[in-house]
Amino acid sequence: MGRLVHKYGGTSVGSVERIKNVANRIEKAAAEGHELVIVVSAMGKATDHLVDLAGQISAEPSKREMDMLLSTGEQVTIALLTMALMEKGIDAISLTGWQAGIQTEAHHGNAKITSIVNERIVEELSLGKIVIVAGFQGISESEITTLGRGGSDTTAVALAVAIEAECCEIYTDVTGVFTTDPRYVAKARKLDSISYDEMLEMANLGAGVLHPRSVEFAKNYSMPLLVASSMSDEAGTMIGEEETVEENLLVRGIAFENDVTKVTVEGLPNKLNTLAKLFTTLSNKKVNVDIIIQHQYTEDFMNVSFSITQSTLKDTLAALTEVQQELGFKDIHFEEELAKVSIVGSGMVSNPGVAAQMFEILAEYEIAVKMVSTSEIKVSAVVDERNMVLAVEMLHKAFQLE
Amino acid sequence: MGRLVHKYGGTSVGSVERIKNVANRIEKAAAEGHELVIVVSAMGKATDHLVDLAGQISAEPSKREMDMLLSTGEQVTIALLTMALMEKGIDAISLTGWQAGIQTEAHHGNAKITSIVNERIVEELSLGKIVIVAGFQGISESEITTLGRGGSDTTAVALAVAIEAECCEIYTDVTGVFTTDPRYVAKARKLDSISYDEMLEMANLGAGVLHPRSVEFAKNYSMPLLVASSMSDEAGTMIGEEETVEENLLVRGIAFENDVTKVTVEGLPNKLNTLAKLFTTLSNKKVNVDIIIQHQYTEDFMNVSFSITQSTLKDTLAALTEVQQELGFKDIHFEEELAKVSIVGSGMVSNPGVAAQMFEILAEYEIAVKMVSTSEIKVSAVVDERNMVLAVEMLHKAFQLE
Repeated sequence: MGRLVHKYGGTSVGSVERIKNVANRIEKAAAEGHELVIVVSAMGKATDHLVDLAGQISAEPSKREMDMLLSTGEQVTIALLTMALMEKGIDAISLTGWQAGIQTEAHHGNAKITSIVNERIVEELSLGKIVIVAGFQGISESEITTLGRGGSDTTAVALAVAIEAECCEIYTDVTGVFTTDPRYVAKARKLDSISYDEMLEMANLGAGVLHPRSVEFAKNYSMPLLVASSMSDEAGTMIGEEETVEENLLVRGIAFENDVTKVTVEGLPNKLNTLAKLFTTLSNKKVNVDIIIQHQYTEDFMNVSFSITQSTLKDTLAALTEVQQELGFKDIHFEEELAKVSIVGSGMVSNPGVAAQMFEILAEYEIAVKMVSTSEIKVSAVVDERNMVLAVEMLHKAFQLE
Repeated sequence: MGRLVHKYGGTSVGSVERIKNVANRIEKAAAEGHELVIVVSAMGKATDHLVDLAGQISAEPSKREMDMLLSTGEQVTIALLTMALMEKGIDAISLTGWQAGIQTEAHHGNAKITSIVNERIVEELSLGKIVIVAGFQGISESEITTLGRGGSDTTAVALAVAIEAECCEIYTDVTGVFTTDPRYVAKARKLDSISYDEMLEMANLGAGVLHPRSVEFAKNYSMPLLVASSMSDEAGTMIGEEETVEENLLVRGIAFENDVTKVTVEGLPNKLNTLAKLFTTLSNKKVNVDIIIQHQYTEDFMNVSFSITQSTLKDTLAALTEVQQELGFKDIHFEEELAKVSIVGSGMVSNPGVAAQMFEILAEYEIAVKMVSTSEIKVSAVVDERNMVLAVEMLHKAFQLE
């Protein structure tokens, strides 16, 4: 039996009882003869509590000090989980990010892992120990850093690669990756397997199970990922290369998100660097732009539409107003209460008719399409928010995902 | 203006409000032009909370994992205090024990500081920053260690020595060192100054303000210590060399502790290694013995009495019974509900009559003395617990401490 990495998220280690439950699960995997490295997050609401303490002191605390503060959350969990294993007579040792050799950029609050010095972990494994590592954190020179959103998943995948694990198993509060969100669509079905690229599109589009960074990392190193529940023994979803995928369905899942707002800039003079200026302005205001559509309606003028999340509309309008004179556009429109619905599947690459089929289905139910964006394995349509669930249900049915 | 080390204990940083209060105090000291290194403990009940979590998992958790767990407490405080200073526009940086270069033995839970690699702290000071260091913790190779009881005081003194500070200022919830415990004796008086040796005797005897390890450390390096309140601006007590002490009173303070039990082993055969065996047995059972009195009543036999704390009586009796046959003693007696009262003062060294004076005073109030122990600057008498406060009050008065 080879090496495995398990990762348990905040909910899975949210209480002493749950930590003991995780210890039981680890015991079983160890009994099967695996060498185990376990990555854990901070306990349930621990991070929120720390963020709240900082918030009582400073509206904008130093990022370095936030890393210093937040990294204690995972450190508490690794110590407690290790104690729980030792209490069962299992030899285990906890390691902080820096002890585990997780080197990162010097970018507090959102550092990327640059390399893993795996000596310590490999040594502890060779001594027969289960190694419990604090997720979400690393070290840059001698500074404690954190990895930002989805950081613990990334830690797990990076460690799996560094110790040449057979698989990186992400245990969470859902039983796997679904064809669409089961909270909205009762007939959503759990997938046995999915490809990295499909998962990336699903993750980016709000499926929310895994952070895209960790999936991309796994893809780059061909590290098989398993997503499964820490609370049940139900089989999860395997994420791997194309060829390992169960059946070559055209569409593998429907992702969706609401709170989408469409903004249109009208009558923008068609100069070389206009688009660059427009989106740099928004980026400087930390406005995240998703879909962009450009339409040149005369030789000299164009319209540009883009989608943003509802909450950044105010900043967007302010930023645009600031540069209206400089850019010389005529008007701004916006449309709120929209949603984005996307079909995802690697089968689409060789099947150009899928987008058309999607539009037909939406038309059949009189759902107007406001914007469209496509990638090789995804087609996204922006629709009215009130039509979102209907659109997802109908697409889910029409593409035989039930 | 030179360098200063401040240390703030758990009560002083027990809430966000108190952390802000500490930041205000630091701001004042910085405004006076001092270079400052600040050592802090975990917030109020934070350590208790962590100990409780561990206790829910294991009755005897691994000491290494306890260090991993508990060291997070101080790490939270350094981050929050640094944020509070930065919020006031003061440049500051937090350092964990290992970042601050605090090297210790590889003895988890009770490590001694072996050396301090001061480069990082000195560099940050030279950049004009106030350096906030986590007390109570250090590093041995790449393992996180904690220093045990009084650890943060020791961290503060060791850092003061390492950066050649002018003074190490310990801020706590009392206003200084008193002639005796003001909770018991209303006329207790705060001392302006006291010598290291006197403080050591006071600390050992339960005055409780400073841990003896930190006082000894300060004495070895002639580092002046100030004990003062973090809640008021009242002048505290300076602890220094003999010559700095205000007035050469014979007795400088009265220390006392209750819960003392006296155990007597009767008819112990007078062999060479009998005493060694007897006390090794107790030490192996983790019984702490304080006063020891040996009385050889014939050439072949002796009686040995010693004092222990009430809570270890059961273990003591069990241990003695185990070795009764081997050691060949005749009987065991014990006497509970006793207390130890001690007079402390370096003036005693050259004044042999002080002990006699103490016994006279006790006799005057019909307080029976059960055991006596003396050092160069201390005389301790064991008396009935019910007489403890009376004895302290009368000695306090007779030796002109009011």
